[in-house]
Amino acid sequence: MTVTRVPVVERILSANDRLAEQNRARLDEACVFGLNIMAAPGAGKTSTILQTIKALSPRVRLGVIEGDTAAVTIDADKVIAAGMPAVQVNTGGECHLDAVMMSNALPQLPLDQIELLIVENVGNLICPAAFSLGTHANVVIASVAEGDDKPYKYPNIYRGIDALIINKIDLLPYVDFNMDYFKRGIEMLNPGVVTFPVSCRTGEGVDRWVDWLVEKIRK
Amino acid sequence: MTVTRVPVVERILSANDRLAEQNRARLDEACVFGLNIMAAPGAGKTSTILQTIKALSPRVRLGVIEGDTAAVTIDADKVIAAGMPAVQVNTGGECHLDAVMMSNALPQLPLDQIELLIVENVGNLICPAAFSLGTHANVVIASVAEGDDKPYKYPNIYRGIDALIINKIDLLPYVDFNMDYFKRGIEMLNPGVVTFPVSCRTGEGVDRWVDWLVEKIRK
Repeated sequence: MTVTRVPVVERILSANDRLAEQNRARLDEACVFGLNIMAAPGAGKTSTILQTIKALSPRVRLGVIEGDTAAVTIDADKVIAAGMPAVQVNTGGECHLDAVMMSNALPQLPLDQIELLIVENVGNLICPAAFSLGTHANVVIASVAEGDDKPYKYPNIYRGIDALIINKIDLLPYVDFNMDYFKRGIEMLNPGVVTFPVSCRTGEGVDRWVDWLVEKIRK
Repeated sequence: MTVTRVPVVERILSANDRLAEQNRARLDEACVFGLNIMAAPGAGKTSTILQTIKALSPRVRLGVIEGDTAAVTIDADKVIAAGMPAVQVNTGGECHLDAVMMSNALPQLPLDQIELLIVENVGNLICPAAFSLGTHANVVIASVAEGDDKPYKYPNIYRGIDALIINKIDLLPYVDFNMDYFKRGIEMLNPGVVTFPVSCRTGEGVDRWVDWLVEKIRK
């Protein structure tokens, strides 16, 4: 069965896009590079952010918006403990961040003191893809423990992203994950997209990801 | 920020509940036990279904409804290859199954020939919790690779479920997963809920889960 998008949904998405453009303008004005990180629950969004902070500190000052579906500050607390400002956005049960939530969170961050804003979206491989936030780059993190068929099953999230992090590669010997099959799926959806195999647990591969990010920020 | 549920959402949920009751009545009439399986992407929903088929066949005949957000039949094909009837429901980008989709799928299955209907929901730890399908039991599968903080971050999905499968326990030596912390989170949300630590890869623990399920079906 196919669900037809009704006009009200179109209007919501279009209003979201307009607000996302305003968010983008606010970031540009403050010379802040915005990065939206999307992934399934437990793929390693927060771990990647913490590894990125570790690699970039103190040369790049960053801030984080933590999207959560519940009133928990587990992730925001970790970022603050790592010495960076963080704002927690509780979506109140909603399964994604949108441009309104981003717009409300921005004034709570010291934009004039940061160069990079990382937005950790809600853990979900579906809906975050439909809501622009106004960031300059969108990245998905896949975990090898999730299996190699995710591009085929959740295609929309991989379309149009700027980079793909393949996390938990330390688990490759213990899971059934065919990297060629996975990458073929990605290539069909987003030809030529750059991929970063990493292990946030061991730190392997994080340097390549961070080099790419720094180049994007400084461009 | 908290999102206030607007009346239109309440009406949709209430209409869904009424249709879920009708689905339940159709299952009851056909003497079919309905089981709704929810989990994050890649936690092992299909693997659990395949292990369950293997353990129950031929003593229990079952059918499967496969919920997918895209037009892929990867999971349905696996069930059919295992010798059981399966119907694929493509949600057209929606992030959960609802009672309407279930109602449309039911006539496509030989209900008079099956005793157990397993519904594999869309991979998502948030929205499936809000939409009753009319099944007799609701189960969540957690993967230890997702981390031990999921009950704290995605609480709604664990509330009111009848059992929790903790999958991929073969990975426990290689991931940072504190079982006590995880179970304390679950216990706060759903006191006394039965949990089944399993490895669908090695088959460990599957027998306990299947015994519980058979007891539920035959009750």
